[in-house]
Amino acid sequence: MLERGQGRWRLDEPMVEALEIGSGILGTGGGGNPYIGKLRVRQALREGHVMEIVPLESLPDDARIVAMGGIGAPLVSHERIKEGREGLRCVRALEERLGIKVDAIACEEIGGQNSMEPLIAAAMAGLPVVDCDGMGRAFPEMQMTSYAIYGHRSTPSVMCDPHGNVVIFDHAISELWHERMARACVVAQGGASTLASAPMSGEFIKRFAIPNSYSKAISLGDAVLEARRAHRDPIEAICKSEDGNVVFRGKITDLKRHLAGGFVRGEAIIKGFEAYEDDEASVHIQNEFLIFSRNGEVEVIVPDLIVILDADSGEAISTEMLRYGQRVAVLAIPCHPLLRNPEALEVVGPKGFGFDDLVFKPMSIDSEGGTS
Amino acid sequence: MLERGQGRWRLDEPMVEALEIGSGILGTGGGGNPYIGKLRVRQALREGHVMEIVPLESLPDDARIVAMGGIGAPLVSHERIKEGREGLRCVRALEERLGIKVDAIACEEIGGQNSMEPLIAAAMAGLPVVDCDGMGRAFPEMQMTSYAIYGHRSTPSVMCDPHGNVVIFDHAISELWHERMARACVVAQGGASTLASAPMSGEFIKRFAIPNSYSKAISLGDAVLEARRAHRDPIEAICKSEDGNVVFRGKITDLKRHLAGGFVRGEAIIKGFEAYEDDEASVHIQNEFLIFSRNGEVEVIVPDLIVILDADSGEAISTEMLRYGQRVAVLAIPCHPLLRNPEALEVVGPKGFGFDDLVFKPMSIDSEGGTS
Repeated sequence: MLERGQGRWRLDEPMVEALEIGSGILGTGGGGNPYIGKLRVRQALREGHVMEIVPLESLPDDARIVAMGGIGAPLVSHERIKEGREGLRCVRALEERLGIKVDAIACEEIGGQNSMEPLIAAAMAGLPVVDCDGMGRAFPEMQMTSYAIYGHRSTPSVMCDPHGNVVIFDHAISELWHERMARACVVAQGGASTLASAPMSGEFIKRFAIPNSYSKAISLGDAVLEARRAHRDPIEAICKSEDGNVVFRGKITDLKRHLAGGFVRGEAIIKGFEAYEDDEASVHIQNEFLIFSRNGEVEVIVPDLIVILDADSGEAISTEMLRYGQRVAVLAIPCHPLLRNPEALEVVGPKGFGFDDLVFKPMSIDSEGGTS
Repeated sequence: MLERGQGRWRLDEPMVEALEIGSGILGTGGGGNPYIGKLRVRQALREGHVMEIVPLESLPDDARIVAMGGIGAPLVSHERIKEGREGLRCVRALEERLGIKVDAIACEEIGGQNSMEPLIAAAMAGLPVVDCDGMGRAFPEMQMTSYAIYGHRSTPSVMCDPHGNVVIFDHAISELWHERMARACVVAQGGASTLASAPMSGEFIKRFAIPNSYSKAISLGDAVLEARRAHRDPIEAICKSEDGNVVFRGKITDLKRHLAGGFVRGEAIIKGFEAYEDDEASVHIQNEFLIFSRNGEVEVIVPDLIVILDADSGEAISTEMLRYGQRVAVLAIPCHPLLRNPEALEVVGPKGFGFDDLVFKPMSIDSEGGTS
């Protein structure tokens, strides 16, 4: 672990550059474009805002922690700039609704732009951000956090849009109903808003959050930057940092992608080259990359991470940036153990995405880039 | 006026029978099916609930009055029975959010089933219902009340569905944004929920509500029932009660109707008979009947009331009950003067429904059934 993982530390601009790269990889195609998020975080830092990260272990058991993130289609948040104070308004409205003060902000998903949202809101509210998240990656739906999986009821929650509208989901009979209502409402709000969930206790979040998410994402980004500086292979650096494998290399030969119900859905077909010359692969998409198959055989399944990188530069490619003809490498990275328990797999395993005939099988680490 | 219009009075079963008929006519095709509403009100009365109506004039200036009604597609509320306590949950959640006690319930729209919703919620909450509404008829969207038109900001509002979900629209930047977000959310909740708006003061509602709505709707229903008992023409009785005209009689020869964005939209074509033998008429629909044209010439325009009745029985036909081949009479009834002011016509006139090239012209009273 980095030394900054041990105690309270401050985010600086070089860390934000590394976080952009790391969260882009952990976004597994989604989570929103981290470049836009980076620009907003950098601007906030330059305006004098202080962004402090506190380790999970430092939280008192009775601390009140609010998790937040962007909700909507990544494509919209790419094209329409946020107003800027959505997250702050969420925190304040939640405090008013519940008559409490919040002690710290947590991240819903470390993948993509959603790694940046909590930093901005927390800085404006004068609160620290906890070094954790609820996914260790990105997932498309709100009930797919380790927080929700292990029993946190996320309502009352507050959703704020760039226009100034404030909606409180005061009570949802289930996490799935919360997701459904918020999803419909965010489409009406223009497709990209910010949502803060009901507070969690320090005691709860220490047990059920994915730990050290910011430290790890920054380390991952640093590893890529260092490899680039040293003219080493960044893909190898990613695999080493994340216990990952290169499972395929090839050229995108077909791409189906459409917006449906507030999500990007589709499939990418990749024709192999180099060691994979005789093979064809496919990757299923719902905002994120969900299933990797080789010659029709499923090999890597959500919640394990499937990452598509530019084969030469090693840059992560998000779903909206996929193009016909791109030369890509596909990486598989094992998910956090909290997401592999049976109760987690009900929500974030293949069944949670409607693939009822698939059974999750943890990825094996045996390929060219592997660390076995 | 009825004597019951002068002071506080109790609703009984015969009044509910009359209210079903009267609110069905004032529904102008929409507002939800009043038959289902009647059954629910009757059941509540038989269970011992007391339903009291108070006249507008009796309200203290500082009274807190909450207006409510069903939101969604009339067709859904026809096919899926409500859980029953949606309205009560709305009132309680609004009281909790604002830290206040509500003094009385008002009706958003007197047309259709929405005349019944406030009665049930108020009885359960032990509150009276004010003898007024915000439309004097039915309109498809929430911003189309005299309350909103004359300056009431309807958020924070609470929407409850039959499942137990509670959503607070805490702040909307305009009445139209409130409508948009609530409409999207009600579709996610299954298409028929109940919504209660931010409290109004007694002083405000006395100036800007459509007065005596319950008394008048019951009188209208009584007039129809009396005509039926005396074997007189119920259509004539309606015209007399409401200063209305028969503007057309004919057979429905074409019917376009579809669900879009949570609304029923379409058009009915009517081939004339009797005095209208050489004419063809059309009626435009968005949940309610909006525009009546004869031989391509617009004659009656929203907010004036267009009512379609069974030509023989005089029963009001709602949009979802229109059928090819029905023999119908079309009535025009003048709307309340509060809806004819320029600020009202911006919202409930033809422009408010996207008919930008039409100008509202108050209906004339000169036809066969007229009272001129």
